[in-house]
Amino acid sequence: MTVLVFLDPAYADGRVADASKPSLMATDQGVTRGDGIFESMLAVDGTPRKLSAHLDRLASSAETMDLVIPPAAAWERAIATAIAEHPPAEELVVKLLVTRGIEGELPTAWVQASRPGTSGKEQRESGIDVLLLDRGYDSSVAERAPWLLLGAKTLSYAVNMAALRYARKHGADDVIFTSTDGRVLEGPTSTVLIATVRNGVRTLTTPLLESGILPGTSQGALFKTAAAAGWQLGYGPLVPQDLFDADAVWLVSSIRLLAPVRSIDGRQIPVARDLTEELTTLLVKGSRE
Amino acid sequence: MTVLVFLDPAYADGRVADASKPSLMATDQGVTRGDGIFESMLAVDGTPRKLSAHLDRLASSAETMDLVIPPAAAWERAIATAIAEHPPAEELVVKLLVTRGIEGELPTAWVQASRPGTSGKEQRESGIDVLLLDRGYDSSVAERAPWLLLGAKTLSYAVNMAALRYARKHGADDVIFTSTDGRVLEGPTSTVLIATVRNGVRTLTTPLLESGILPGTSQGALFKTAAAAGWQLGYGPLVPQDLFDADAVWLVSSIRLLAPVRSIDGRQIPVARDLTEELTTLLVKGSRE
Repeated sequence: MTVLVFLDPAYADGRVADASKPSLMATDQGVTRGDGIFESMLAVDGTPRKLSAHLDRLASSAETMDLVIPPAAAWERAIATAIAEHPPAEELVVKLLVTRGIEGELPTAWVQASRPGTSGKEQRESGIDVLLLDRGYDSSVAERAPWLLLGAKTLSYAVNMAALRYARKHGADDVIFTSTDGRVLEGPTSTVLIATVRNGVRTLTTPLLESGILPGTSQGALFKTAAAAGWQLGYGPLVPQDLFDADAVWLVSSIRLLAPVRSIDGRQIPVARDLTEELTTLLVKGSRE
Repeated sequence: MTVLVFLDPAYADGRVADASKPSLMATDQGVTRGDGIFESMLAVDGTPRKLSAHLDRLASSAETMDLVIPPAAAWERAIATAIAEHPPAEELVVKLLVTRGIEGELPTAWVQASRPGTSGKEQRESGIDVLLLDRGYDSSVAERAPWLLLGAKTLSYAVNMAALRYARKHGADDVIFTSTDGRVLEGPTSTVLIATVRNGVRTLTTPLLESGILPGTSQGALFKTAAAAGWQLGYGPLVPQDLFDADAVWLVSSIRLLAPVRSIDGRQIPVARDLTEELTTLLVKGSRE
């Protein structure tokens, strides 16, 4: 089942809506223009993980988009309502969505809670095959062209979805986007993370934020606890060869967590089950803080 | 007022919905992922202009997006219903929208009819100030990266809307996107068209379609009748200097028609009122055929 809770000034804890019935206007710019933003987070045993990181990123996306959104406290109450309205579940996907609303009116904001699908868990265990796909942008465009909204998590995800469909049609599970100047960027719904172990020094590296990627909340949570556990941390630039040279590569995201990459463009790469376990534990720890 | 007509196999002529009430599911991938396509056309005295061109482009967008959409005949009946349900109006904006629907279910498809705003007519008369903004793509990316959906008119328009907001914040009305390799592309919701008159030869030029722009239905309609009226026709490549060297520049689209550009990046360019009139007449003629 899906629980919907709309943020509505008339309802302090949010207005619960029947998810089996239409609740959006067909003229909402969220649908007519993909004009809005979102976050997806995992709630475990009723507690959202990385809540502040998600609310901070939502606020940052809103600022990039010139959207005035409800304050964090209103989100927190609506999230609590959504979780309370859902039958108890070990894991819930909690999505926060805000659209620009109907022209001339206020933004539409809501929380959605539902059980995660099974594919995330499967992919976490079996690993994933990925394709490198050109994102069409160079790695400096985000800085010079803010209207491209590269740092915002917008509802305009048609390209991300098309890239995933392209991968599946070609026998892969997921995608790592690259820039036209040959940098590793991000997955359509995830952050790239690589581990290298050299002379006993263990290093986690993720692409440079300035290359126009979304700041990963999971990567951020993991980096905090990984540092305390003795990992060296690095921010790219990364190029595709770095992926092939690494001791392990993951796509990391809030729901699927660390999905080990087992092949890139059909070429097998090492999968380090022990590192996946260790880092997943550190990620979960970092996500609770 | 807005009329909504959903394409629904149970209703041969479409299902009329109350536009003052919610009619979309909050879990529709049209809103959660901007995953869908659309068309906007003008109906004059109850007759949609360029109907086949819009239906053809909708079908082409659907194919690019792997979306199975209702056949043209079903759209035509729903459009007729929408126009009939709206109080008679000289001009109506008729939008066709299709989303990927709820996960695992069929696409959601509907027609929306409403009166146009006043700004299009104003801009047609007064002219528009535009900014050149970098689209972040080079002009060859569409061919090598089909997952970027550059030839499809998707609902993921957040960047187009952000570019327009950027222009307005900087004192302009509209935008002409350029590629990273210095080509003129298109407007966020329009096609670029330039006229040059040299030694009595009158030429209309529009950017190369292969540069990753949307094929303009208005430009297509105009080119047919303009050729018959003695205009030479050309397809770019165009570079920004071509805009400054032209005898007139327009942004052309289905609702606003030919909007004369009067300045680019703050620099005045010639406005040719007689050409605008002549070409608008030819566009209207071409749109009726």
